Amino acid sequence: MKRKGYSTIAKLVVMATLPWAIGQAFADNAKQEHSSTPATQYTAGGGSPLANEPMHQNVNPKAPPMTEKEFSIGKQIYFERCAGCHGVLRKGATGKPLTTDKTLAAGTDYLKVFIKYGSPAGMPNWGTSGELTDDEVDLMARYIQQEPPTPPEFGMEEMKKTWKVLIPAEKRPKKKMNNFNIDNLFSVTLRDTGEIALIDGDSKQIVNIVKTGYAVHISRLSASGRYLFVIGRDAKINMIDLWMEKPDNVAEIRVGLEARSVDTSKAKGYEDTYAIAGSYWPPQYVIMKGDTLEPLKIQATRGMTVDTQEYHPEPRVASIVANHHKPEFVVNVKETGKILMVDYSDLDNLKTTTIDAARYLHDGGWDATKRYFLVAANQSNKIAVVDTVTGKRAALVDVGKIPHPGRGANFNHPTFGPVWSTSHLGSEDISLIGTDPVKHKANAWKVVQVLKGQGGGSLFIKTHPKSKNLWVDTPFNPDAKISQSVAVYDINNLNKPAQIIDIAGCAKDLGEGAKRVVQPEYNKAGDEVWFSVWSAKDKRSAIVVVDDKTRTCKKVIADPKLITPTGKFNVYNTQHDIY
Amino acid sequence: MKRKGYSTIAKLVVMATLPWAIGQAFADNAKQEHSSTPATQYTAGGGSPLANEPMHQNVNPKAPPMTEKEFSIGKQIYFERCAGCHGVLRKGATGKPLTTDKTLAAGTDYLKVFIKYGSPAGMPNWGTSGELTDDEVDLMARYIQQEPPTPPEFGMEEMKKTWKVLIPAEKRPKKKMNNFNIDNLFSVTLRDTGEIALIDGDSKQIVNIVKTGYAVHISRLSASGRYLFVIGRDAKINMIDLWMEKPDNVAEIRVGLEARSVDTSKAKGYEDTYAIAGSYWPPQYVIMKGDTLEPLKIQATRGMTVDTQEYHPEPRVASIVANHHKPEFVVNVKETGKILMVDYSDLDNLKTTTIDAARYLHDGGWDATKRYFLVAANQSNKIAVVDTVTGKRAALVDVGKIPHPGRGANFNHPTFGPVWSTSHLGSEDISLIGTDPVKHKANAWKVVQVLKGQGGGSLFIKTHPKSKNLWVDTPFNPDAKISQSVAVYDINNLNKPAQIIDIAGCAKDLGEGAKRVVQPEYNKAGDEVWFSVWSAKDKRSAIVVVDDKTRTCKKVIADPKLITPTGKFNVYNTQHDIY
Repeated sequence: MKRKGYSTIAKLVVMATLPWAIGQAFADNAKQEHSSTPATQYTAGGGSPLANEPMHQNVNPKAPPMTEKEFSIGKQIYFERCAGCHGVLRKGATGKPLTTDKTLAAGTDYLKVFIKYGSPAGMPNWGTSGELTDDEVDLMARYIQQEPPTPPEFGMEEMKKTWKVLIPAEKRPKKKMNNFNIDNLFSVTLRDTGEIALIDGDSKQIVNIVKTGYAVHISRLSASGRYLFVIGRDAKINMIDLWMEKPDNVAEIRVGLEARSVDTSKAKGYEDTYAIAGSYWPPQYVIMKGDTLEPLKIQATRGMTVDTQEYHPEPRVASIVANHHKPEFVVNVKETGKILMVDYSDLDNLKTTTIDAARYLHDGGWDATKRYFLVAANQSNKIAVVDTVTGKRAALVDVGKIPHPGRGANFNHPTFGPVWSTSHLGSEDISLIGTDPVKHKANAWKVVQVLKGQGGGSLFIKTHPKSKNLWVDTPFNPDAKISQSVAVYDINNLNKPAQIIDIAGCAKDLGEGAKRVVQPEYNKAGDEVWFSVWSAKDKRSAIVVVDDKTRTCKKVIADPKLITPTGKFNVYNTQHDIY
Repeated sequence: MKRKGYSTIAKLVVMATLPWAIGQAFADNAKQEHSSTPATQYTAGGGSPLANEPMHQNVNPKAPPMTEKEFSIGKQIYFERCAGCHGVLRKGATGKPLTTDKTLAAGTDYLKVFIKYGSPAGMPNWGTSGELTDDEVDLMARYIQQEPPTPPEFGMEEMKKTWKVLIPAEKRPKKKMNNFNIDNLFSVTLRDTGEIALIDGDSKQIVNIVKTGYAVHISRLSASGRYLFVIGRDAKINMIDLWMEKPDNVAEIRVGLEARSVDTSKAKGYEDTYAIAGSYWPPQYVIMKGDTLEPLKIQATRGMTVDTQEYHPEPRVASIVANHHKPEFVVNVKETGKILMVDYSDLDNLKTTTIDAARYLHDGGWDATKRYFLVAANQSNKIAVVDTVTGKRAALVDVGKIPHPGRGANFNHPTFGPVWSTSHLGSEDISLIGTDPVKHKANAWKVVQVLKGQGGGSLFIKTHPKSKNLWVDTPFNPDAKISQSVAVYDINNLNKPAQIIDIAGCAKDLGEGAKRVVQPEYNKAGDEVWFSVWSAKDKRSAIVVVDDKTRTCKKVIADPKLITPTGKFNVYNTQHDIY
């Protein structure tokens, strides 16, 4: 198998952009979308001298002066471009800390070079990439020497103000009113337009394009499969009723300023009862009514880090899943490295088990039995395993650099038994972890095999119980040949080199574009794999459907309305956590 | 029974000083004690113009200017005099909010009058009482118009730096090495000297005076009764081994900048295993090893308020007790109004039940069966009842203005069965609450009777299973006759007016002094009640021992070393939660 080198510089750039991976980098409609947020607006291409404006006074007199208007522009740009990696409070996460002790020591000139050209240490080239003007680069170099303003809180009052029930439960259909095979619908994020496309997996036709929050991060289903929940990076949740003649929004809410995760209650007796969403800012989660999104209970995640036990002001909520065995949500808190098992059976006497894991928790998925949840700790290069029956940590498994499993991929390894697998952003490794502590005890919670992929920059890995293929994308590999293709392994013969499939090549009529190939997603039957071919907003994108058996392109869905498609979620597989 | 009127002004002053009740008001050694804290020092009697100092720049340019040195003095005075009522972050609690939107609107001149003379709305007269000079009053009026500086965090690293094991466990006695009747020892807070006095309850002799943190708030015993734990307002914990020939400190630690509560694990199998302390700043609690005070697990309490579900940055930990039925601590969080049941059986997978109660939780005690914990919510004028077997809230009971039970008093009411009782700071009422949901179901969690006391300003109420007397103090009543006496009721005839006992009158040889009579505490046998007769540091104080049967003074312990005695804790009664 042919492998491309992956330079240190490029690798680190990818690392630094990770939180915005399917997000910020191509977000030219962010300003428009954020107009509904409490953050101050700024005029694109601004940065002209604002000498007559009142001056902003900083607590630290050493910071270079800026006017109140400049400060307000800086605040907005920081929120849109910088906060994802460096944190709203600048404590650092995937990006370095930008606290004023560090930025003042660096000084304006150094910071300007850094912001304009990027750096081998992982900073994107915001200036030379054209995303910020020279004036804006100068403004930002001064802004980050000022103390970070604390963003507003977003409690029950603020949430209630944004909460809308568009169609009350009693006015919704009593039965399915359409002829779609709902189980095989795909919810596809159109990240830069703030929409999702609902695509009929049988006919490959677009059923509806639904207005949502900006850059929907994930789609999740209610336990019954009737309701689809999507959450934007701007923390807006939309609830879509798939029983409607034309499935559409029935309720919406904003749960904060920035968010990534939503899920629904799945334990017996609680099907479709609750939804939960976790936010990046404020650092908290909220439990909502499952049929209306009415916010019921908000819990903050601010607290002590798992290792040094020091207070962290911004422990963001990463992935959330619903325990299948008990009425619990599994809430993964990034900066503290703690996993919260939140019992939703009694919200007034809320039981929570705080499981010590490792920093910084990110995304993850279930093992095939759905007893164990495996979640990446991407600063620690570990996978934390939680036993959701005992409510304890089962293991911490060392893997490669910056594991990014998405939800991972489960299959029966011919030698080692059941495994769950992850690819990595910072390495070409694909780690297979044994997940059967009963029949394959010696292999359980150990990396039993490492496959070599095309290179780093992988976001997602996928298979299906009916398939013998394991697909691995590499959309953030700097080599276009690698980012536009995927590797596919034969599960029955994992020592055989992967086949490389040129997915972008199947969509050559699109014209120019980055054509990053991202996120394999199976149809319900498990005989098709869907890939996004993702180019910038002003270029054409597509979805390429591959026949899983023959590994050949079967269909290109290239509707012009599919602008910047990224994540795709098959209803049945998502509902039942099949991956 | 004779009752004195209680003027609105005086009542509100008492309310405002509540958190410093046994604390700040007479604290003239506070500066000395705080010299070990990270807070900046100031020179007593300072306030001279510091015109040549560098200027402090405020985020809000409307705030009157002050030099960096003035700002630093203001920070220290605020911490010592104001934070207890108004909160470190000035969000308000027992005192009003002092956020800059309010203080800037008020202006310097108005604030100066307020600080110097106090107000009917509850502000103490810091100037005319002599505690602050005119220059300091002026400085503070300007200081509180500046944004509040956030005090430092205090995590594991900071705690470990202050942790000292003075005598390792293996070097301590293997058996009791003294001839004291430990069960009848009293641990007496000498608040203004930063000490406790250990007094032999049989001989009334002082066994030892032990150096502790400043203004020890409470004493608690390990489950076995061997170890005594005390916590100062400066968050210093001392652990005293009562088996030593002369009982003394064996370990110490600081757990924050300000604290009130400590307790030890009492569930079967966990006797003497853990200690826990809750702090006011930072808002958190820490679980420690029971034999060394080694800090093991810190948990933050910052989060959402129980009613409006808005984020509170400073939810202080008020009282903590150990559940007798399960390995749990009951942690009462003041500003959020939530009760945390913290399961200490597995610190790596920490289970917590968050019970919604009411604001602001303060102190409380067990019912006689030790199944139900009753805690005052002093902003809501309610008592919250927790069932520690089910881990749920049993009731919220409306009582009088600012309930302040201490740990309350349990007895069998001749008509209504078992009751738990509380007096109030803001009212003369003594509320009796039925606590037997099995045999007296109709009375359970209801106020079954209200006794009329001498007046407001009560802190503590006490009885004993072997006694038929119910004692109520009124140390903060503005009428000296009332503050120097106590009311005692006949439990078998509660309709009979209380007898008023002039406790200070028994200690007339002390000379001048406030002679506030505070905190009835029984001996082990239940046939003596001890009262503190508390005057300022430069005046003489005493402990008066009353014969419970005859209600007459039996002994005055007037050793000159008993400077500002306040809380007294009998070892056996404290160990077994008898009150």
